[in-house]
Amino acid sequence: MATQTNKPAFSGIIPPMVTPLLSDNLSLDVEGVKHLVEHLVSGGVHGIFILGTTGESTSLSYKTREQLIVESCKAVNGRVPVFVGITDTSIEESVHQALVAHNAGAAAVVAAPPYYYGLGQEELYKYYWSLADQVNLPLFLYNMPSHTKINIDVKTVVRLSEHQNIIGLKDSSANAVYFQSLCYLLKTNFSLLVGPEEITAETVMMGGNGGVNGGANLFPKLYVALYDAAMAKDFARIEELQDLVMEISTRIYTVGSYGSSYLKGLKGALSALGIVNGNIAPPFTTFDEKEMTKVIANIKDIEIKVAKVL
Amino acid sequence: MATQTNKPAFSGIIPPMVTPLLSDNLSLDVEGVKHLVEHLVSGGVHGIFILGTTGESTSLSYKTREQLIVESCKAVNGRVPVFVGITDTSIEESVHQALVAHNAGAAAVVAAPPYYYGLGQEELYKYYWSLADQVNLPLFLYNMPSHTKINIDVKTVVRLSEHQNIIGLKDSSANAVYFQSLCYLLKTNFSLLVGPEEITAETVMMGGNGGVNGGANLFPKLYVALYDAAMAKDFARIEELQDLVMEISTRIYTVGSYGSSYLKGLKGALSALGIVNGNIAPPFTTFDEKEMTKVIANIKDIEIKVAKVL
Amino acid sequence: MATQTNKPAFSGIIPPMVTPLLSDNLSLDVEGVKHLVEHLVSGGVHGIFILGTTGESTSLSYKTREQLIVESCKAVNGRVPVFVGITDTSIEESVHQALVAHNAGAAAVVAAPPYYYGLGQEELYKYYWSLADQVNLPLFLYNMPSHTKINIDVKTVVRLSEHQNIIGLKDSSANAVYFQSLCYLLKTNFSLLVGPEEITAETVMMGGNGGVNGGANLFPKLYVALYDAAMAKDFARIEELQDLVMEISTRIYTVGSYGSSYLKGLKGALSALGIVNGNIAPPFTTFDEKEMTKVIANIKDIEIKVAKVL
Amino acid sequence: MATQTNKPAFSGIIPPMVTPLLSDNLSLDVEGVKHLVEHLVSGGVHGIFILGTTGESTSLSYKTREQLIVESCKAVNGRVPVFVGITDTSIEESVHQALVAHNAGAAAVVAAPPYYYGLGQEELYKYYWSLADQVNLPLFLYNMPSHTKINIDVKTVVRLSEHQNIIGLKDSSANAVYFQSLCYLLKTNFSLLVGPEEITAETVMMGGNGGVNGGANLFPKLYVALYDAAMAKDFARIEELQDLVMEISTRIYTVGSYGSSYLKGLKGALSALGIVNGNIAPPFTTFDEKEMTKVIANIKDIEIKVAKVL
Repeated sequence: MATQTNKPAFSGIIPPMVTPLLSDNLSLDVEGVKHLVEHLVSGGVHGIFILGTTGESTSLSYKTREQLIVESCKAVNGRVPVFVGITDTSIEESVHQALVAHNAGAAAVVAAPPYYYGLGQEELYKYYWSLADQVNLPLFLYNMPSHTKINIDVKTVVRLSEHQNIIGLKDSSANAVYFQSLCYLLKTNFSLLVGPEEITAETVMMGGNGGVNGGANLFPKLYVALYDAAMAKDFARIEELQDLVMEISTRIYTVGSYGSSYLKGLKGALSALGIVNGNIAPPFTTFDEKEMTKVIANIKDIEIKVAKVL
Repeated sequence: MATQTNKPAFSGIIPPMVTPLLSDNLSLDVEGVKHLVEHLVSGGVHGIFILGTTGESTSLSYKTREQLIVESCKAVNGRVPVFVGITDTSIEESVHQALVAHNAGAAAVVAAPPYYYGLGQEELYKYYWSLADQVNLPLFLYNMPSHTKINIDVKTVVRLSEHQNIIGLKDSSANAVYFQSLCYLLKTNFSLLVGPEEITAETVMMGGNGGVNGGANLFPKLYVALYDAAMAKDFARIEELQDLVMEISTRIYTVGSYGSSYLKGLKGALSALGIVNGNIAPPFTTFDEKEMTKVIANIKDIEIKVAKVL
Repeated sequence: MATQTNKPAFSGIIPPMVTPLLSDNLSLDVEGVKHLVEHLVSGGVHGIFILGTTGESTSLSYKTREQLIVESCKAVNGRVPVFVGITDTSIEESVHQALVAHNAGAAAVVAAPPYYYGLGQEELYKYYWSLADQVNLPLFLYNMPSHTKINIDVKTVVRLSEHQNIIGLKDSSANAVYFQSLCYLLKTNFSLLVGPEEITAETVMMGGNGGVNGGANLFPKLYVALYDAAMAKDFARIEELQDLVMEISTRIYTVGSYGSSYLKGLKGALSALGIVNGNIAPPFTTFDEKEMTKVIANIKDIEIKVAKVL
Repeated sequence: MATQTNKPAFSGIIPPMVTPLLSDNLSLDVEGVKHLVEHLVSGGVHGIFILGTTGESTSLSYKTREQLIVESCKAVNGRVPVFVGITDTSIEESVHQALVAHNAGAAAVVAAPPYYYGLGQEELYKYYWSLADQVNLPLFLYNMPSHTKINIDVKTVVRLSEHQNIIGLKDSSANAVYFQSLCYLLKTNFSLLVGPEEITAETVMMGGNGGVNGGANLFPKLYVALYDAAMAKDFARIEELQDLVMEISTRIYTVGSYGSSYLKGLKGALSALGIVNGNIAPPFTTFDEKEMTKVIANIKDIEIKVAKVL
């Protein structure tokens, strides 16, 4: 391996921003984007990640995705780095979207494996290496095996970390052994971010660089405080905040059946708190009235508790 | 259920056409499309299905997909019905692609489930019903659980068959119990096509309506003859032809490791026979030299045997 | 490959016998065994397979398994060959059970892969070769990937077929491409039996040797007639009988939720028809009253239809 | 929920003891058991768990399992609590094995879900409740979805925790979100132990009660020290020890292909260090010479590093 120059390092709480939609469930709610960006930036987040799984990227038309890139970067206006998801089954579309991101002023792009065909690790390695060659922004790998059907194996990540343009990985597998293996093998010059907010505290304490946590759309300050507490190894504070994070996890994200319960719960709660409306793009739909009643009651209750500790 | 008027019925061998690409592995090889269409139509196929899994639809840019729709329909020029894959994670893009297909003169559209998020059956049902409402061509369901992570359950298919615009299903699960259940429950007014060519003969004999067989890109007449023999219940002929189909399956599609071996073998063999070039879009690449040597030798051998029985 | 002497060949309908249990859901109902064996033998079956998945083998104590082997062989009394499941995670227990089977007069043993650890194909190959060396009855492989987490790959089966003591395979994968590949590659000197009754007709027509069909516990004559029709390629008869097989499949095996619905439906129907009682060993339980009411109504209705065609 | 009396609480490092075997790969190496028990007890472990996945329980005959229970309890002689795995597909055998454990003086039994049939959560709940009723030792649930095909869902665990005789859970899923959910919902009166040693430190810091860590067979003092450091929140010490744990994980457990690499690496390393011989029961075999050479070199190297920090 040739000597590498330092890669740009990112850390902290970088929420995977939900995509505010108009009532047709397809068109971008531009005012909603502006409002949500303000909510996040004023909440102290260290970056914003748009067009991820929480952002419903794959459900949006390409036109809408591009519009979101432009509007988000404009609203953020350089105050924090913007990360843009370019996950796609077509590498040509990924490269194009990275160009749009670059032109809009984004800081980095993020790509999960192509998710239609089943790939082997060697195929995946070649794919990412080629993608990294073709985009002119730093690239984050995005491990999301439940959705892409493939795990980016530890050995593959280590090999890919040698590419100058691949600067980190977001892991949404929830597999803590996987994450610890990466922390151990890639101690320097590579940003390791974790998806599930339930484990941001423990991974940060063990060497992780931060969290791409959906719940930070609701209460950015809560997750920033948890990250700060984990960095400071302030266990009393961690325990207090972790309890609230777990309350959100267990009372908001699991109200419905199916895996979509997380997204429906999150957007439902955002709507209940008046942050942005809760419209969801197909193939999903918003919760029905009975489920929403529950989400509203739970999030209002949690909101009070969050206010108390911040 | 209200009385239904008759739905358009499709049957026979409808090859999932490979997409000929130029040497950049991205751009459409328009001359190749014309040549392949002639090869297929003159081979007696009953229809052509473009932009399926074999057609690398998800690996192509949207511009290329649209170009392929237009060029294919032009080349076919009404001689056989053209089926257009509109599988997408964004319903807006699916609907748009169906419009392009309609304008180009296609006969029907084909959609696998949205393949990023994990869906529940009820969510899948609503998705398809809504999609069928929005497209102005008849819609085939496309069951492909290995790639989409969800099986369109028998009960869901039965419910969806009540939609006037949903006229059939292509099943690529290889699960013969599933296929027999559909044959039994949907005996009339619904076209049931099978993907894997290894089981076209048996499913047609048991009530299936035909095969969407990749190998028909190579030898369209072979698969048409097998279909005819199955319809005629001519067992001596079936046995003779089935052996050749199995030889293609076991000597061409499994040369490499990984699931991509089918596509690489098929495109490699097409190239070896001089039908179209073998370029493959990322995330895949063509076989390496050692594998190609094997594919070439095997397909040349098979070609001679096929010529003898046709 | 050295020249092989001929292996014993088995074909036809070989029901996977349910295990009649007393009301403690643990002890063998010896009278039930005798009654069921008579029901099957007088129904014309070509063999009886005990201690398979339908026989709840893994749920029974070893003492009960041995008792069942002895009692079944005694009741059959040489009229048809008895196949004994020896599937186990401990090879020592498998070998011991094969010895019990041998001493009781069984014709062959049947083993699915060890089903706790995840194995690789090479490990599986070595395991089966060693097992075949150690048992003194002919051995059938049993492919059951949904339960054992591993598919016995086509290449592994072909390699194992070279063992003089491995004489066939029962495939319960429902994957017809897999089955056709085996039919093509192992045309002679190897018995290929299919598990799911929904596809016995088509696999027999394409070269398969018979069916290990759970529904034959209910109506042995129906499945024997279907096998005969498939062998005779009598399509009118196949269609008539296949419809009844599919009616059993869709109206008896899918009454409950969960994968256990097949077993609960089958035992419930056997009880409703007065053939044997419907007790089920843990971890399962019999259907509740509402589900049983449905099973009873459906099977009574089907019984009348079956009587008409036989 | 009725008021519960306090349940026995277990915590700390409780190694899943490997099972020393003679060179027939089947019979218990009784001297090896005694030697290994001394190695572990003198290493300061807080308990010993026999007949788990690392203990090859499912590969052993019942006679050998019982012998191991008796010999282990005798060797331990009350110095630390002994946990006995009773995982089985037959509840009758599980209950019997629990009785043997009770008579031998074991402290608790541990059961993973029955692992042949696919169960639903409600079926799993009833199974465990019934099992807990029938055993006369406290019962630990054992979540091992990769081997049993079913996750004991959070809601199911919470419901089962209401049984007086169900006192804890060992989680080998590596899913840290799952573990955090249990930590949050079951803060008191329930022992939560984690399987993978790579995450013992972080889970203990977040409220977990200890680790059932395979590597503790090699270096019990290392894992006890890590547990102590995690309890003391001594981060400098955690970092130093965690690095060694990760070195074992990445250099010993992943030498071969296949999932069996962990077990083969662990037993190979134990043999290299002269602790116990490395014989493995079928369906597995020991590493070949090339792999063993690597394991030996790596573990000797690690041994020196471990000695330095303890």
